[in-house]
Amino acid sequence: MTDKIIVIDCLGADEGPEMVVSSISKALAELPSLSFALVGPKDLIESKLKELGSDMSRVEIVDANETITNFENPMTGIMTKPQASLVQAMKLVGSSDKYIGMITAGNSGAILVGSVRFLMNEQRTRPCMAAILPNAKDAFTCIVDTGATIDVDSYQLHEFAKLGSDFMKKLYKIDSPKVGLLSNGAEKTKGNKLVKETYPILEADTSLNFVGNIEGNKSLSGDCDVLVCDGFAGNQVLKNTEGMAKNLITDIVKYSKKNNRPEFMEVVQYLMSKYDISSLGGAFVLGARKTIVKARGNSNEKTFVNLSRMLLNYHEGISIYNK
Amino acid sequence: MTDKIIVIDCLGADEGPEMVVSSISKALAELPSLSFALVGPKDLIESKLKELGSDMSRVEIVDANETITNFENPMTGIMTKPQASLVQAMKLVGSSDKYIGMITAGNSGAILVGSVRFLMNEQRTRPCMAAILPNAKDAFTCIVDTGATIDVDSYQLHEFAKLGSDFMKKLYKIDSPKVGLLSNGAEKTKGNKLVKETYPILEADTSLNFVGNIEGNKSLSGDCDVLVCDGFAGNQVLKNTEGMAKNLITDIVKYSKKNNRPEFMEVVQYLMSKYDISSLGGAFVLGARKTIVKARGNSNEKTFVNLSRMLLNYHEGISIYNK
Repeated sequence: MTDKIIVIDCLGADEGPEMVVSSISKALAELPSLSFALVGPKDLIESKLKELGSDMSRVEIVDANETITNFENPMTGIMTKPQASLVQAMKLVGSSDKYIGMITAGNSGAILVGSVRFLMNEQRTRPCMAAILPNAKDAFTCIVDTGATIDVDSYQLHEFAKLGSDFMKKLYKIDSPKVGLLSNGAEKTKGNKLVKETYPILEADTSLNFVGNIEGNKSLSGDCDVLVCDGFAGNQVLKNTEGMAKNLITDIVKYSKKNNRPEFMEVVQYLMSKYDISSLGGAFVLGARKTIVKARGNSNEKTFVNLSRMLLNYHEGISIYNK
Repeated sequence: MTDKIIVIDCLGADEGPEMVVSSISKALAELPSLSFALVGPKDLIESKLKELGSDMSRVEIVDANETITNFENPMTGIMTKPQASLVQAMKLVGSSDKYIGMITAGNSGAILVGSVRFLMNEQRTRPCMAAILPNAKDAFTCIVDTGATIDVDSYQLHEFAKLGSDFMKKLYKIDSPKVGLLSNGAEKTKGNKLVKETYPILEADTSLNFVGNIEGNKSLSGDCDVLVCDGFAGNQVLKNTEGMAKNLITDIVKYSKKNNRPEFMEVVQYLMSKYDISSLGGAFVLGARKTIVKARGNSNEKTFVNLSRMLLNYHEGISIYNK
């Protein structure tokens, strides 16, 4: 084993554990400084890795066959299923400094409950989920929170701003990330109660490069590196982005077919690669002792490789919360 | 004058009153059953209309030279500027049944304050702003509210649902519009406090065709005809849609140039016409005695023609709130 290990929850992805193991086999080949602790059905994992000719010296396997499904109450799941792959993975990642983080496609609610239960740091920060989306300046914008904490207060939004700023510093090596506050207008006076309460708090925090309110049409303009919002609004930004990308891409496909212009499919390919949230994607749970990456349920073989690389980059930044 | 008159606030558009008057000149030619009451600088309006050869027998002009700017407090503006074009237009539209509605590109806040001050109906419904956006089923989805009421309660959201449903019945002649509630998940248990409180109220109202929670990625999927949300979240949906359309269209322009593929500009043209919010657009203020259409500041010559046509169609539906 190398000195940096990522814990992988092999259960929870729609395509099943074989896909996850194939993806990790690729990650082992591409990221030689990393080792992986795979939590899931031991026999299946072992035989699949061997079949793919993976470097078994950088693999640790923890047997787990139980999952917390999306239909279960997350709290009940975490409390009553100590053998579930997610619970075992969380306990493992918290057990030693050599585990730098974990990746799971499991139940989001259970990930959040579990991160509070097993991995909360002493500052008792409420966790948030950060998503990274491509912006109009050919860079990336971090949205915090995208759904971890639906009903929040201004204290929590301030925490999210700090976590998001720190995250972008480490992940993209941005010295002083521009932090914007999602609102319904750019002026300082605009916003709902929560936004109006939060604005002066962010403005007063000199450790943040606060750039003021950001309107929805500028959320991915690149005017800010970190977009701060409550989990409900952030969930809208995240999912609207996905929905609109899908709608416009579908429009082009239809237009191409209707007008018999197959060459327009090149545009479709280009946009799909830029906005392919399933391979890029995943949300980072920030604010716990270890970084937990939530991969999407419909992850594909590229997903776990990309997320492993991001987790490694992030870890090699100036770590504050990961100790 | 014909028996249906639309009141036009000629001040407020970024391009100035000449553009608005040119647009109305087109509307006079295209919509022979309509007359217009133009509120703005009388000499300018008169000479411009004559220059364009418009039918002056269907035009009434009310002189106004003052505006409430976007930098003024809306309440102060409404209360201290009785001569402002917006205030005069609102008083005029409320003065007689022959005025079926009004269109203005003025200050949104002042429009809302004015509609409460001059045009509130006896039911004392809180106004909401409905926007109509193109959806994935090549139809339109009405978003209520898009920013009239930023901090709302479940009673108000219920009102918005009824107003939006009635609006789509009248505007698009949909018998039983599907009403969805914007949330962070499709399940009944998902939502912030407000959404969780509102869900059972909408579910219990048998006059509505309530289809449950709608996630952000489905907001313009066409799964609902009316998407109900608080003004803050609705503003995000509206502006994100606009922002994402702009980002993807810009992506294609860049890709086309970089790869020297001018033929891809046809895709750009197509998407721009489908998502051209400035000519399609405008939000409808619902819940007042008269329908007020807020045209975007960056309206063009097509805008007032399109909005006049929509206002006429809407008025000729089964009118409930317009009496």
